[in-house]
Amino acid sequence: MTAERLVIIGGDAAGMSAASQARRLKGPDELEIVAFERSNFTSYSACGIPYWVGGDVTDRDALVARTPQEHRARDIGLRMRTEVTEIDVAGQRVRAVDLGTGEAYWTGFDKLVIATGARPVRPALPGMDAPGVHGVQTLDDGQALLESLDRAPGSRRAVVVGAGYIGVEMAEAMLKHGFDVTVLNRGEQPMATLDPDMGRLVHDAMDGLGITTVNRAEVTAIRTGSDGRVRAVATGDASYPADVVVLGIGVEPETTLARAVGLPLGPHGGLLTDLSMRVVGHDNIWAGGDCVEVLDLVAGRTRHIALGTHANKHGQIIGSNVGGGYGTFPGVVGTAVSKVCDLEIARTGLREKDARAVGLRFVTATIESTGRAGYYPGARPMTVKMLAEYRTGRLLGVQIVGRDGAAKRVDIAAVALTAGMTVEQMTALDLGYAPPFSPVWDPVLVAARKAVTAVRRAGTA
Amino acid sequence: MTAERLVIIGGDAAGMSAASQARRLKGPDELEIVAFERSNFTSYSACGIPYWVGGDVTDRDALVARTPQEHRARDIGLRMRTEVTEIDVAGQRVRAVDLGTGEAYWTGFDKLVIATGARPVRPALPGMDAPGVHGVQTLDDGQALLESLDRAPGSRRAVVVGAGYIGVEMAEAMLKHGFDVTVLNRGEQPMATLDPDMGRLVHDAMDGLGITTVNRAEVTAIRTGSDGRVRAVATGDASYPADVVVLGIGVEPETTLARAVGLPLGPHGGLLTDLSMRVVGHDNIWAGGDCVEVLDLVAGRTRHIALGTHANKHGQIIGSNVGGGYGTFPGVVGTAVSKVCDLEIARTGLREKDARAVGLRFVTATIESTGRAGYYPGARPMTVKMLAEYRTGRLLGVQIVGRDGAAKRVDIAAVALTAGMTVEQMTALDLGYAPPFSPVWDPVLVAARKAVTAVRRAGTA
Repeated sequence: MTAERLVIIGGDAAGMSAASQARRLKGPDELEIVAFERSNFTSYSACGIPYWVGGDVTDRDALVARTPQEHRARDIGLRMRTEVTEIDVAGQRVRAVDLGTGEAYWTGFDKLVIATGARPVRPALPGMDAPGVHGVQTLDDGQALLESLDRAPGSRRAVVVGAGYIGVEMAEAMLKHGFDVTVLNRGEQPMATLDPDMGRLVHDAMDGLGITTVNRAEVTAIRTGSDGRVRAVATGDASYPADVVVLGIGVEPETTLARAVGLPLGPHGGLLTDLSMRVVGHDNIWAGGDCVEVLDLVAGRTRHIALGTHANKHGQIIGSNVGGGYGTFPGVVGTAVSKVCDLEIARTGLREKDARAVGLRFVTATIESTGRAGYYPGARPMTVKMLAEYRTGRLLGVQIVGRDGAAKRVDIAAVALTAGMTVEQMTALDLGYAPPFSPVWDPVLVAARKAVTAVRRAGTA
Repeated sequence: MTAERLVIIGGDAAGMSAASQARRLKGPDELEIVAFERSNFTSYSACGIPYWVGGDVTDRDALVARTPQEHRARDIGLRMRTEVTEIDVAGQRVRAVDLGTGEAYWTGFDKLVIATGARPVRPALPGMDAPGVHGVQTLDDGQALLESLDRAPGSRRAVVVGAGYIGVEMAEAMLKHGFDVTVLNRGEQPMATLDPDMGRLVHDAMDGLGITTVNRAEVTAIRTGSDGRVRAVATGDASYPADVVVLGIGVEPETTLARAVGLPLGPHGGLLTDLSMRVVGHDNIWAGGDCVEVLDLVAGRTRHIALGTHANKHGQIIGSNVGGGYGTFPGVVGTAVSKVCDLEIARTGLREKDARAVGLRFVTATIESTGRAGYYPGARPMTVKMLAEYRTGRLLGVQIVGRDGAAKRVDIAAVALTAGMTVEQMTALDLGYAPPFSPVWDPVLVAARKAVTAVRRAGTA
């Protein structure tokens, strides 16, 4: 009996989790594993880059969960700096190029995992490639940015383009390097993953932290000096001096290879899979991580969410299925947490516009409370917004902005959403209470009580 | 039309929440509210006493959520320092004594709320009433203890009797006053609300904090000096020098009045109510807070849990029902959180012995992880233990011991228990992930994955 060959395209979270889990279930005599990675790194935490750049994490290598050597020691045939350029679906083979030697070759597969990740959105604007303009998606990006910061002149002005998770996290990182920080945000408020009323709270808090946020700012050009280095970022009606520019505009699924051979893509450009993470219509091809779309369990449609925690779950499930076990990824409820300095930001489920987009009628309730008993030292304000379905009262979403202990409280709502709870059921939840950890009514319970009232009022109106 | 009269026995969380909520729904022309409270305080946070004694909270009045004056301003006829000594169920009246004047009188009711709370367990041992021996259930207790600490001699040795929530919290408080602290614990390990293997972690951490914990220590006497003040605490085989003794042995339902007139009590001595908090068999009598038993939704039997968060919910529900609305308290899953210095302790659902007691077969999984990404500053160990039902994999309980961010993670399990989730369903939970808040696999997910493996193994064994 010859071993089957599993080929993996992409050596980061999804791909290498799949490899590791498959190897746990099947030894090399049963399953040969070949993984292609075009960069110099495997299995690293892209989510950790803002904290490395900001200096919280001092060692780049700490972000690497598992090195190529560690993978190879577990009988995973890893080919670094090797880029897959073509998939031959019918012929069950992939073409790869060794980026060092230029050598190109075909490798056959019995099973294929596509884990090509996401690529940063880069608007085609003048000056986008100028020295001093930096993305922060890869470790190489982070290294280049850190070197650029060292070279920045005394004025130390940073412009961050984009006010989503990466944007606000990078604003904090730049602040920690002593830069004057301006965030240019295309939307109405920062953190477009929140409703604007909650985004407004983030804006105000960023003001308080000394970060200038400019909303409705559409970047039109990066201006450079005579040395070619960045000097300013231009918007329609203003110009913001910059010694360094950080691009935190977001990412899109990297599905060039898949698109070229007609694999099924969703409305957001990500690969479509079934719940076992098999590419729809292809029994021997799986896909996971930032290159796929995931089912939004609250909205009942697919979304693209680039997040390491999903990628790891996908990889683990793919590895189980490839290795002869069985696992499924039922979908997401859209949970995300972040912070800017000590301000914590969290969301799960649907925003108002998401609910409207899928035709759900809803009520909202917003409350202010604290993360600890009001009399306990360090009790600081927390705002919780809750969306519930009109009449039924089914929980639709929660957004939280606050300080100590705000962010992970969203997990309460994430589980309640998964379970399909109503806000009335949530009012009875037996949540942990002690003065250092919560008021006697947890803020989530207070929001649920107000949401119940809103549901009842709307139902009788 | 004359107003109905609502009589409330007990002016703390449950009683005054009921009063407030009833008043919100019905004005004084419809409902007269008379509340009897034997102490000098209303609506105070007993859970906050350890933090006031320890100095985290400097102002005693901060623990009072609402003063008698504030209640009276809302048309609640509050009679302070007045103790109800008898309930006449058939006659629909209560007898009360003004503790100041000694005057006794009967007051009729249309509706009655019993919110008599709990009383501390006080073993009948020699020396129990000596100066320097203190309970910590009431604000007066706390005040007396603080005064005793001021009078303690230079040696400053404190013995805490009991190693449950109050015991460990008071150990921290004594430590903050510069005392040498010894905790005498009757059980195998501190925190008997955890399984002993998890209690062991608390023990080790308390050692590390400089708190001496003596397990299997049965107190036999409090020894006093010639001045009558406490000198030592004696156990069967040892004597522990003490300048101050704090009793944290626990509480039992205060149901003397109810018992005297044959109201239904459960196996733990607490009043039995239906889900609307009506005393079983009595249409016009409600009960809530520390004097009732609550339904344990996981074990399917009643328990006695003295906790402010339940008392507040009970009061709110009673007030709704008395006021013409409708609410129910479905029960608890047994969530509790606490801390000793920076060590966080949390539990929900069943311990091993609880599961055995109700005849449930189970498997366990224990994992170690961190509350943040391993590379993020301040990532510290966290141990999560999970119990799942044999074969079905239904979640039965979770215990967590760790540092930053450990305690409130138990809320994830509390919601999952309420929803009846299996540990396999939990592995797919979309929990908040970002490096400052969680590893890419949240510790609860890691525990769920290990529990799935344990369920599968046990099922095929």
